[in-house]
Amino acid sequence: KTLLLLPGDGIGPEVTAQSRRLVGWLNANAGLDVSVCEARFGGAAIDADGVPLTPETLALAKASDAVLMGAVGGPQWAKQSYDKRPEAGLLALRAGMEVFANLRPALCFAALADASSLKREFVEGLDIMFVRELTGGVYFGEPRGISDLGNGERRGVNTQVYTSSEIRRVARVAFELAAKRTGRVCSAEKSNVMESGLLWREEVQALRDAEYPHIDLSHMLADNTAMQLVKYPKQFDVILTDNLFGDILSDEAAMLTGSLGMLPSAALGVKGMPGLYEPIHGSAPDIAGKGLANPCASILSLALALRYSLDRGDLADRVEKAVATALDRGARTGDIGGTLGTVAMGDAVLAALA
Amino acid sequence: KTLLLLPGDGIGPEVTAQSRRLVGWLNANAGLDVSVCEARFGGAAIDADGVPLTPETLALAKASDAVLMGAVGGPQWAKQSYDKRPEAGLLALRAGMEVFANLRPALCFAALADASSLKREFVEGLDIMFVRELTGGVYFGEPRGISDLGNGERRGVNTQVYTSSEIRRVARVAFELAAKRTGRVCSAEKSNVMESGLLWREEVQALRDAEYPHIDLSHMLADNTAMQLVKYPKQFDVILTDNLFGDILSDEAAMLTGSLGMLPSAALGVKGMPGLYEPIHGSAPDIAGKGLANPCASILSLALALRYSLDRGDLADRVEKAVATALDRGARTGDIGGTLGTVAMGDAVLAALA
Ligand SMILES: CC(C)[C@H](C(=O)O)[C@@H](O)C(=O)O
Ligand SMILES: CC(C)[C@H](C(=O)O)[C@@H](O)C(=O)O
Repeated sequence: KTLLLLPGDGIGPEVTAQSRRLVGWLNANAGLDVSVCEARFGGAAIDADGVPLTPETLALAKASDAVLMGAVGGPQWAKQSYDKRPEAGLLALRAGMEVFANLRPALCFAALADASSLKREFVEGLDIMFVRELTGGVYFGEPRGISDLGNGERRGVNTQVYTSSEIRRVARVAFELAAKRTGRVCSAEKSNVMESGLLWREEVQALRDAEYPHIDLSHMLADNTAMQLVKYPKQFDVILTDNLFGDILSDEAAMLTGSLGMLPSAALGVKGMPGLYEPIHGSAPDIAGKGLANPCASILSLALALRYSLDRGDLADRVEKAVATALDRGARTGDIGGTLGTVAMGDAVLAALA
Repeated sequence: KTLLLLPGDGIGPEVTAQSRRLVGWLNANAGLDVSVCEARFGGAAIDADGVPLTPETLALAKASDAVLMGAVGGPQWAKQSYDKRPEAGLLALRAGMEVFANLRPALCFAALADASSLKREFVEGLDIMFVRELTGGVYFGEPRGISDLGNGERRGVNTQVYTSSEIRRVARVAFELAAKRTGRVCSAEKSNVMESGLLWREEVQALRDAEYPHIDLSHMLADNTAMQLVKYPKQFDVILTDNLFGDILSDEAAMLTGSLGMLPSAALGVKGMPGLYEPIHGSAPDIAGKGLANPCASILSLALALRYSLDRGDLADRVEKAVATALDRGARTGDIGGTLGTVAMGDAVLAALA
């Protein structure tokens, strides 16, 4: 089995290095047999290769069993043209790997519940799983662009578009996941004002009725979902969304937990194809290169790779337990109220694993 | 001066009735001279007239000085075709009145700070003003609709579109408002993945540079805004958004305050044209007709109408103070932890006014 690392920008390289150490340890001590390679990505690739994702790197990603990304972006690339930005590389990677289902847990670590801006009773035990559509919708729809209308006026356009099959394949992932949890899926859209949202709602309901009658499916308008996440987040189990609503609502939910630096994500395609794993947090340019970043989200993304792409759910469980144990023992980076650096936090997880 | 009431559906009629009482009191006792009329709107109009907004009602709205809406929608109309739904009436009213700037305060009433799911220190004193674009973007863009692709597949499309002048006129409202507050505006978009968001960002910045150099303007990605609202909401003063992001982010912010049943909104067009005022809360079908709804959001919407459309900022101040006084004296409906009914809460505000 092969794992491609794409450390990317900002704190990406630092946190990814700790996951790499972990793979080394698992290879040596836990019967894992994964070979690791690494490639430039995002701003780092723009600087070296002129584009955020070279065709070679995409080919490498598709030929791997799993891809672990660090983070992309930073102020130094924000003035580039659209297709020359780090973010364009990430979108091209997601599209090229056809990873249409983005799993984003919003999990509150018991040891960190007090770090939330919400009262403890609202977040303790919180465990929401977002399933966000990742390769369609307004991120990719055509026509798009900015046109000059003359007379000093410009016009900016993007297109929100979904087909039945795009909706059904991601809804299926949500239903399958929910079946292993509490069996509840809440689908969020704006079907009251957007036809694409109405199609979303109808297709999700039809799939549920035809193939997942045991799933408890509800529909909620996206604005109300944004409210309900604040009001009483524990009402949710699996939340199914399109690309744009998922971007916003899953970030809101992640911040509710107070554990942002701890949250991983997985992007999955059809069975047997490689998955793309990345921390929820961004490149955090303000602390990049200082050895301060929390590596846990990257390490937990590696755990998801072990579970969903590398056939080692047993080791995924062990890694997740090791992170929890390290926290229980008091290991904390700055973002979660401690003083450990990136490497020391990696040490703490390795020690808990051993 | 004339005020048109559109009580609408659900709890709309109950809460609007209390605002009507208030106008009567102000006419009799405070030198106000506003004549009130009322029309059917939303589901109520669908049932009686077959459409959610008749041409006559729209004409009446445009001929008034201000329109006070209650709420629209309910499960009984959710199965209707798109253009026959209560929501379609609301969109047609906004578009017809050309009220492009939606002011939505997220204000935490001191007496209610403990009703928030957030810790008191995060919300006490919170005072954010959203300026949401209301007559453009993906709510109105063409092409839109659901088409049949044959082979069992359908395709749903909506178009996010903005022109320079649509962006500039709403940004101007945000800058003017900010100048009377702390002078800070944060503009939220997804300029990293959407060209319409990039145009938004560029036009907002250009207007600031050309005409509002004293305004402290920042830009924030909408997903990050959703996070920052949870993390530390007091960092914001005025938040400027497009129609869709504003819908979601302002609802998130409203719920942070714990005062949802207390929050009004104003939708304004060009100077001199009538404004549209409505509570943030919806039609709440579950408690409709029971006399339980909190009338304060409607009463405070009336206060905004007094300030922005009826040239009586002095009375607006008095009404707002009366609501605060009623709260301080312990008046509470069920949604904010009390036992008063709608009329009794209206009594409490009237008593505080007198
Ligand atoms: C970096 C950006 C393109 C990306 C997105 O909007 O999808 C990010 O916000 C995310 O959620 O992974
Ligand atoms: C009822 C609906 C059409 C409306 C919207 O989405 O604008 C509502 O959510 C609001 O925010 O006023």
